[in-house]
Amino acid sequence: MEFQISLAQLREAHERIKPFIHRTPIMTSQSLNAIAGCELYFKCENLQKIGAFKARGGLNAVLSIPEEKRATGVVTHSSGNHAQAVAMAAKTCGIPAYIVMPNNASSVKKSAVAGYGAQITYTEPTQAAREAAADKIMVETGATYISPYNDYKVIEGQGTSALEFLEDQPDLEMLVIPVGGGGLLAGTALSAHYLKPEIKIFGGEPEGAMDAYYSMQKGELVPNKITNTIADGLLVSLGDKTFAIIQKLVSEILVVSDKEIADAMRLIWERMKIVVEPSGAVPFAALLKNKEKFAGKKVGIILSGGNVDVSKLPF
Amino acid sequence: MEFQISLAQLREAHERIKPFIHRTPIMTSQSLNAIAGCELYFKCENLQKIGAFKARGGLNAVLSIPEEKRATGVVTHSSGNHAQAVAMAAKTCGIPAYIVMPNNASSVKKSAVAGYGAQITYTEPTQAAREAAADKIMVETGATYISPYNDYKVIEGQGTSALEFLEDQPDLEMLVIPVGGGGLLAGTALSAHYLKPEIKIFGGEPEGAMDAYYSMQKGELVPNKITNTIADGLLVSLGDKTFAIIQKLVSEILVVSDKEIADAMRLIWERMKIVVEPSGAVPFAALLKNKEKFAGKKVGIILSGGNVDVSKLPF
Repeated sequence: MEFQISLAQLREAHERIKPFIHRTPIMTSQSLNAIAGCELYFKCENLQKIGAFKARGGLNAVLSIPEEKRATGVVTHSSGNHAQAVAMAAKTCGIPAYIVMPNNASSVKKSAVAGYGAQITYTEPTQAAREAAADKIMVETGATYISPYNDYKVIEGQGTSALEFLEDQPDLEMLVIPVGGGGLLAGTALSAHYLKPEIKIFGGEPEGAMDAYYSMQKGELVPNKITNTIADGLLVSLGDKTFAIIQKLVSEILVVSDKEIADAMRLIWERMKIVVEPSGAVPFAALLKNKEKFAGKKVGIILSGGNVDVSKLPF
Repeated sequence: MEFQISLAQLREAHERIKPFIHRTPIMTSQSLNAIAGCELYFKCENLQKIGAFKARGGLNAVLSIPEEKRATGVVTHSSGNHAQAVAMAAKTCGIPAYIVMPNNASSVKKSAVAGYGAQITYTEPTQAAREAAADKIMVETGATYISPYNDYKVIEGQGTSALEFLEDQPDLEMLVIPVGGGGLLAGTALSAHYLKPEIKIFGGEPEGAMDAYYSMQKGELVPNKITNTIADGLLVSLGDKTFAIIQKLVSEILVVSDKEIADAMRLIWERMKIVVEPSGAVPFAALLKNKEKFAGKKVGIILSGGNVDVSKLPF
């Protein structure tokens, strides 16, 4: 098998998580079509449980833990949507969740995680401190570690959004997907590869964390050294598992500035009347910056999430 | 007949406008149910064409003009969603629209109206100046005047949202509807009266323009003298036609402050990931202020619109 994940596995993941997720709607907008010069279809993962596609990966990872290993719970470290996804998945399964969060995480995110009954451990906001805290919890509790993106069960879960998308809208010709750690982009690329191999897949990435762009150029992982972007869901770098898939199946990574992200986000809010977070607006920004690549085509965009502090907007 | 509008007329209005409007989705939110202590169903007219329910009334009024009178076009005065509704309806019918707008209308609204190809006349922002300008246009062009709310064709059109709502969610026990001029509240009350007379209907109204509250108390029209609220879609006072219906069919008008409106609006944005304007958040604010009236019930709320300047938010 060319890839570690088969179509059958993607479909099994979908069956596994289906009872616990929303089949998110696909929205269209004549006024955005006119602005973009193509026919746009938006898959609204901002309307997913926990407000982001990560519910899919988190649920698939937690539900894939063998019964006999589940009781001791799950552990992860994250300041964002993955923390909520794991906490929600653990609550769904009735098992403990231990979430390591940086002490500077927003109070909105802290209370969302706490709302799912997770036990939160706060650490300094460094990768080393977070990993050390998670390791300690694993040893002490026997909890299973759930990686945010570089994990086949997580990639499978994220890929289920594209399964629904292509089932509901089989005539799509192109897809534009945000890329941070690469779980959504890799999962989507796999689903598209199996269901409609001729679809062209683009990644959308912020300038302030453009490791996927450099990694594709160089043909090897080039992790971000520093990151600086309003797209706070896309700060992490690709992992080896996600990169291996993206390298084979993704045509191009399109890079956008924070200004372009904020403008695209505002257009979505004003014209479609839905809330997307900056990371979720990155693909639309990438499309608007590269209209000639998409002219006249049927283009699918996954609006990845809607978790944003509405009192701190970039416009 | 007890009312000027029959169920057959409401259904005819629906058939008339159906090809040109969205059947708007109904959304639910477990977290908002938990906060409110009841089972909430939100009819998303913020996702309607032009971003507001007024598309319904505008279309029904314009499409109801006899063929032989249509060619000379339509005229109205409005600074808000009704202007867009009439401009869109006229464009749909291929006839001229003359819209009188106050010269202090927001540029967003001006360009939305202009985007539908309407001819805009700017006047001083007084009722007298607006009416004079509209009258002049009627005389000069022979255009038909379309009232924003105190008109049976407009009321019929606005009532079609509740027809869909009760068809899709027939077990609703209560409805909470924003009230300004009263077109949406009167139309909704009529639809509910015919389809499910036992449903209890509440109006939600801002403190800064609470003429419906006073009019219900006094049993006669008590128009607003001054208005001051962020719910800028609800500034106008009830008309005689809307009041006659509301007086008979609406249980109670619930009044809320701007702070309560902003808090409710923020909750909808953050939990449901959709954009509602302050006026659209008034019913949910009214419900949260009066939880005991709704405890444990299935409550329908019409989110009336989503046209808001996202760079000037009340939070």
